[in-house]
Amino acid sequence: MQFELTKDFLEQIENAINNKEDGFLLESLFDLHVADLNLILVELSTDQCKYLLTILGTEKSAEVVAELDSDIRVKFLKSFEPADVAVLLPYLDSDDAADLLNEQTLKTREEVLSLVDDQEVVEHLHELLRYEEDCAGGMMGKELVKADINWTVSQCIQEIKRQAENVDKLYSIYVVNDKDKLLGRVSIKKILLAPKQTQIADLYEEDLISVDVFTEEQQIAQIMSKYDLDAVPVVNLQGKLVGRITIDDIIDVITEQAETERNLMAGISENVEQSDSVWNLTRARLPWLLIGVLGGLLSAMLLGVFEDPLSKYTAVAFFIPLITATGGNVGIQSSSIVVQSLANKSAFDDTVTAQLFKSFIVSLLNGVAIFVLVIIFTYAYQRDYNLSLVVGTAIFSVVILSSMMGTVTPLVLEKFDVNPAIASGPFITTANDILGIAIYFSIVKLLIINVAL
Amino acid sequence: MQFELTKDFLEQIENAINNKEDGFLLESLFDLHVADLNLILVELSTDQCKYLLTILGTEKSAEVVAELDSDIRVKFLKSFEPADVAVLLPYLDSDDAADLLNEQTLKTREEVLSLVDDQEVVEHLHELLRYEEDCAGGMMGKELVKADINWTVSQCIQEIKRQAENVDKLYSIYVVNDKDKLLGRVSIKKILLAPKQTQIADLYEEDLISVDVFTEEQQIAQIMSKYDLDAVPVVNLQGKLVGRITIDDIIDVITEQAETERNLMAGISENVEQSDSVWNLTRARLPWLLIGVLGGLLSAMLLGVFEDPLSKYTAVAFFIPLITATGGNVGIQSSSIVVQSLANKSAFDDTVTAQLFKSFIVSLLNGVAIFVLVIIFTYAYQRDYNLSLVVGTAIFSVVILSSMMGTVTPLVLEKFDVNPAIASGPFITTANDILGIAIYFSIVKLLIINVAL
Repeated sequence: MQFELTKDFLEQIENAINNKEDGFLLESLFDLHVADLNLILVELSTDQCKYLLTILGTEKSAEVVAELDSDIRVKFLKSFEPADVAVLLPYLDSDDAADLLNEQTLKTREEVLSLVDDQEVVEHLHELLRYEEDCAGGMMGKELVKADINWTVSQCIQEIKRQAENVDKLYSIYVVNDKDKLLGRVSIKKILLAPKQTQIADLYEEDLISVDVFTEEQQIAQIMSKYDLDAVPVVNLQGKLVGRITIDDIIDVITEQAETERNLMAGISENVEQSDSVWNLTRARLPWLLIGVLGGLLSAMLLGVFEDPLSKYTAVAFFIPLITATGGNVGIQSSSIVVQSLANKSAFDDTVTAQLFKSFIVSLLNGVAIFVLVIIFTYAYQRDYNLSLVVGTAIFSVVILSSMMGTVTPLVLEKFDVNPAIASGPFITTANDILGIAIYFSIVKLLIINVAL
Repeated sequence: MQFELTKDFLEQIENAINNKEDGFLLESLFDLHVADLNLILVELSTDQCKYLLTILGTEKSAEVVAELDSDIRVKFLKSFEPADVAVLLPYLDSDDAADLLNEQTLKTREEVLSLVDDQEVVEHLHELLRYEEDCAGGMMGKELVKADINWTVSQCIQEIKRQAENVDKLYSIYVVNDKDKLLGRVSIKKILLAPKQTQIADLYEEDLISVDVFTEEQQIAQIMSKYDLDAVPVVNLQGKLVGRITIDDIIDVITEQAETERNLMAGISENVEQSDSVWNLTRARLPWLLIGVLGGLLSAMLLGVFEDPLSKYTAVAFFIPLITATGGNVGIQSSSIVVQSLANKSAFDDTVTAQLFKSFIVSLLNGVAIFVLVIIFTYAYQRDYNLSLVVGTAIFSVVILSSMMGTVTPLVLEKFDVNPAIASGPFITTANDILGIAIYFSIVKLLIINVAL
């Protein structure tokens, strides 16, 4: 039942565009879901796309443009005159229209808005554009169905018929007083099931979860998934119902958040994919690699300080990768467990001290296991009791300290409003490399140089 | 408007339970959303929970139990008799009931089912339990509203009233023929807006996205987010409508998938949180750390092979962390870009060869930049032309080869049906450490030992 784009079909479409076979194009494309249409569009040239949209008509074009990925849309709309964009806006859901305008320069935005005829649309958009894009005010759509608390079910159904024209997905009907203050909700199901003369006042639920215009997207996502909501009403600071956020937007928030986190962990600064240009891929990766390289060069200078023991006891150098790798692994584990817990905060989370203490116990257990393994191996390998003790002690200390660093870093970042997932990326491994080397060679100096040998 | 659990309130509840103040408990808890009730439950002892559920009644208890996290529910239900569980089932959505039964042993499951009176419920559950939990058949609920294609709108509304009793969220009405074969859908909005005598046959949309019972959860998530669906109907292999999957379940799938990926990247084998027990945290972390430690010990043995150059040219050791860290960083970057692209497959993805070629070009650019930086630094630091050339060449080669490894590994894992995100975890850093050392010292031997010195 799902559409799959084949090379053959794409060629047919390209030929049809080049030969202006409008009938064929309409017939084969008009009934496609816009998500599928867009698979085709991204494969075409801008001119071909524009031709296709002309044939598909304004309403369909608006749907297509709304569904495009933000970065593709920005490029695509560059070839549009403000008037071409303005005709699309009234066909878009207000939240999509606001997103589209937000991607434009301030000048283009104003030009486009000045060319929209429908004054209600312009007003709605001006309202939505006032808010940051990642808070409820910037995410909400103006499309919703509301009922006055003084209506009956049959009045309500009449009104739904009128209001629902512009509302794609109904979900709930919001109940307001005559000043538009949000009082509660009534489900479509109840409206359908109730006798016609029932008062909305007797039917509606007062316990309603709403967010205010300044609630941040991540908090909205948390609320909606916690309470299994399809849509959440947005109120202004006076409690007036001003918009609605639907679950499809929240899925995007959740997906993007996961991608951002993965990128931070991997050390990639933009949302790139393997299919992006070589230049974009390089730009997203090089800065993070350079952080690691600079850390590596710092490590080299640090090791230079220990040239003397290194030159006398070459075997000490063999265990450098063991120390740095283990430090990195422990650090990433600790920080991502903390990052995950920060994302699912609960009322009775441990205090920072308690968290540190627990991390300490866990790293103690891990440290002991690793200590034993390393001591045995090192002795078997080098038959040098002192060296095994040094390496074992060093790795034990590295496990404990890297675990502490990995636990504290995300907590500190969170305090300073920086995404704590950064703590699971190249920064932590780089910092732990240097820390590990410092610990290792301090112990080397202490145990081998001064005492044992 | 949101509930927040305070220590005070929790204490009041605990006292009320201990003093059996049923009135107070009912008054303060009955109207809470189950998601909030559960925040309280997880803080109480099992006996306190059971007492609370008795007071709240069977229907509310069923909602509470359905909403519990799977691992908490398993522990909690251990103190329940099969008969206690059986009375809850008819109040649960069928998909939640099936999940609950799936967590029990086969014996308990059959015992519980034998004690359920409602034979329709038993039949539905037997059907759902036949499927794997992570495919459409195991995820779907039996609750949905369907209309016969031969009905009129007013017949349909009558039927909705009857069927909708058990259906929490209506979304669409599915249109079937008299053999229950899925033909299409009609939105509630259309039903509300259409004249009463309209035929469903004239109103319904034939273009409907559905999944079959064996579709896997990740594919369902992709389809639903691509097409912005609130619910998707599930058909059996004969095209008969057998269930429905709603968006709230898909949000859980997306969230869990992101968590699994993050854990694989961080080297954590179970879904643990900072609040889990020390034992669970250790068990989830130690195996991955040991992989890294074994890799480190292998590196030590590999370095042992190069004892001779190391003892002669100590400065060579200074750059070991630089080489291993850079290899690790490049490898993780490359693999996570590929993992991301695998998750968003498109029709015209590059072939493996084309992907490798592109990775090669990107790593070439990164490699050149890093080469220049490292050459300059090393020369400035050690004033040794040969050493800078060796370190520069080594790091350049490491960037290229780690990038290739990072690109190929997830593709190979995917081929063998292993989660490719493993390639961004400790495995890749460990493998790249060893690879990096081998490259570095091969070049050391080639350039310093044999040629230059």
